Amino acid sequence: MAALDSWVDGPTKSAIIDFVGRVTADNGADFVAPEERIAVFDNDGTMWCEKPAYIQLDFLMRRFAEQAAGDPRLRDQQPYRASIDNDLGWFGAAITRHYEGDDSMLELLSAAVVSAHATMRVDEHADRVADFFATAHHPTLDRLYISCTYAPMIELLRYLEAHGFTNYIASGGGRDFMRPVAGTVYGIPPERVIGSSVGLEYTETEGAGNLLIGSSLEVLDDGPEKPIRIWSRIGRRPILAAGNSDGDVPMLCYTGGQGDPALRLLVCHDDPDREFVYTAGAEKALEYAGQLGWHRVSMREDWRTVFSD
Amino acid sequence: MAALDSWVDGPTKSAIIDFVGRVTADNGADFVAPEERIAVFDNDGTMWCEKPAYIQLDFLMRRFAEQAAGDPRLRDQQPYRASIDNDLGWFGAAITRHYEGDDSMLELLSAAVVSAHATMRVDEHADRVADFFATAHHPTLDRLYISCTYAPMIELLRYLEAHGFTNYIASGGGRDFMRPVAGTVYGIPPERVIGSSVGLEYTETEGAGNLLIGSSLEVLDDGPEKPIRIWSRIGRRPILAAGNSDGDVPMLCYTGGQGDPALRLLVCHDDPDREFVYTAGAEKALEYAGQLGWHRVSMREDWRTVFSD
Repeated sequence: MAALDSWVDGPTKSAIIDFVGRVTADNGADFVAPEERIAVFDNDGTMWCEKPAYIQLDFLMRRFAEQAAGDPRLRDQQPYRASIDNDLGWFGAAITRHYEGDDSMLELLSAAVVSAHATMRVDEHADRVADFFATAHHPTLDRLYISCTYAPMIELLRYLEAHGFTNYIASGGGRDFMRPVAGTVYGIPPERVIGSSVGLEYTETEGAGNLLIGSSLEVLDDGPEKPIRIWSRIGRRPILAAGNSDGDVPMLCYTGGQGDPALRLLVCHDDPDREFVYTAGAEKALEYAGQLGWHRVSMREDWRTVFSD
Repeated sequence: MAALDSWVDGPTKSAIIDFVGRVTADNGADFVAPEERIAVFDNDGTMWCEKPAYIQLDFLMRRFAEQAAGDPRLRDQQPYRASIDNDLGWFGAAITRHYEGDDSMLELLSAAVVSAHATMRVDEHADRVADFFATAHHPTLDRLYISCTYAPMIELLRYLEAHGFTNYIASGGGRDFMRPVAGTVYGIPPERVIGSSVGLEYTETEGAGNLLIGSSLEVLDDGPEKPIRIWSRIGRRPILAAGNSDGDVPMLCYTGGQGDPALRLLVCHDDPDREFVYTAGAEKALEYAGQLGWHRVSMREDWRTVFSD
C-alpha cells in the first residue's frame, strides 16, 4: 500500500488521511463510489517547480532560437533575440509591463508561443518534448527538470490511486507539452492531462489522416476555464483538488458539491532553503484558503523531502 | 470471455477477430500495447438508430415546446411552433433547404438548439437527459430509445474490452446529451464520451463554484473536427474506428498510423425489415471504404440480431 512517507506527521497529512478514509469507508456518511473519486492537480508550482521560470518557457526559448537560426529575419525581433541571448530578463519584463498595463511585450511573446510549432505534426512535437526532458536541466537547482517534481505530491498520487481515485492534471501549462512526460514523472497517461492548447488542423493524404499544430490559441486553461475544461474532459465534479495560485481558485471552488465531502489543497512556496519563497500571484488563493478552510500545504513544514530523485 | 454471438459467421466477424488477435499477440509483428488499444465509435447510426430523426432532436423538441409554454412570444416562432405541433416535417425541410443552398430555416434551428438549456446547471441538464431516456420511445420501432442501440456493436465493445481495448464514443451528437446514458447502454463512462458541445460558464457563490450551460456553440464534433477532438481528449491515435457517414471519414482516415495495424468499420443501413435503408450522407464514406479496404458492416447480412433488448 502506498504511503505518505515524504509528508511530515502533522495537520496536513492527517487531513489527507482523514479525508481519504471518510470517502472510502463503505456505508459511511461520506462514502464516494470509486468512479466518482476524481482528483485534479494543477501542474506548475503544484506538481513541479515553476521558478525562476516555467519549464515550458525554457522549451519554447530553445524553439525560438532554432526558428531564428532558420530565418534570419527573426533574429532582431522579440522574443527571438532574447531567446538567442538566453535573456530571461526580457521575458520577466514582459510580465512586469503587463501588470503595469502595457501588453506590447506580452503580445509579441504570445504570438510567438502560439505559432512556435505551427504546421508540425502532433507526434513530432511529442518527440521533441520527450527529447527536451531527456536532457534539460533546471538553471539553479542542479537537477534535471524531470527531477524538479515534488516527491510528496507524487506520493499523494500513488496514495490516492491505491484508494480508488483517478488523478488528472488540470494545468495552465500546455496540454501537449505535459503529455509526453506526465506518464514518466507522474504515472498519469495522456488522456488524463488537461491543459492549454493551440488549435490543430486535420490533413489527409491518400486516405491517411494526420494532425498538425496550428498557430492560434484554442484554450488558455486558467481561472474559470479550469472547471470548464474539467467538466468538458471528465464530465464529473472532482472531490479533491490541489493548486498553488489564483488561477486555481475556480477549480478549487468547483471541487466538491454543496455540502459534499471535498479536500482542497493549496501548495505554499515558503521554503527558501530547498525551493523558493513567493506568494505573488497567489494572494486571492490565500485569502480563499483562509475564509473557506482550504488546507495550506507548507513546503517547509509539511514536506520531509521536496524533490523527486 | 465476451463473444460476438450477434454477429453472423462471415468475413466481417472474421476481420474483427483476426485484427484483435493480431494486435494482442505477444511478440507478434502487429502487437499493440494495451494502453494504445484505443477504439472510437461514432454514435448516431453506428451505435444507435438515427432514423427517422436523431434521438437528440426528440429531446430538444420537447424542450422547445416547454420553453414556448413558458414564454408565449415563442409560440409563433420556429422551431418552437413545429415542436408544439410535433411537426417533424419542419425539421426535415430545414435540412432539405440547407442542401438546396437556403440556410434560413437551419439558422433558426441552430440558434434554438444552442440556447435550449442556457443558464441551466450542467447537473440539472444531466438529470433531464436521464429522465428523458427513462421513458421516451422511438416513434416507429415500438421500443424505448435506450433499446434502439445495436446489440452487435455493444457486443463488440465488450469483446474489445476483454482484449484490453479502451472504448470511446466520438460523435457529432451532444457530449452532455450522451453522457448520462452512455454508462447504462454502452458501459462507457462520461470521461470517454466525446461529442459536440455548447460553451459553459463558470459561476461562484460564497466560494462554491458551479457550471452553467451557455448559449453558443463550442464544438461541432463532425468531419475534420472528430480526429482533432480525439487527440484533444485522448492524446493517442486510435487503432480501431467505427462510423456510418461522411462525417466519420476523417476519424476513419486518422485511425492507424502509416502502415500500422488498424481496423476501420463502416456500418451500412441496408436492412428494410429490421431497421432502415439509406445511404444519403454516406456517399463519400462508401467510396473511401471501397478504395481503402475499410470493412463494410451490413446490418442485413452481418448481424444476427439488430437491437438490444
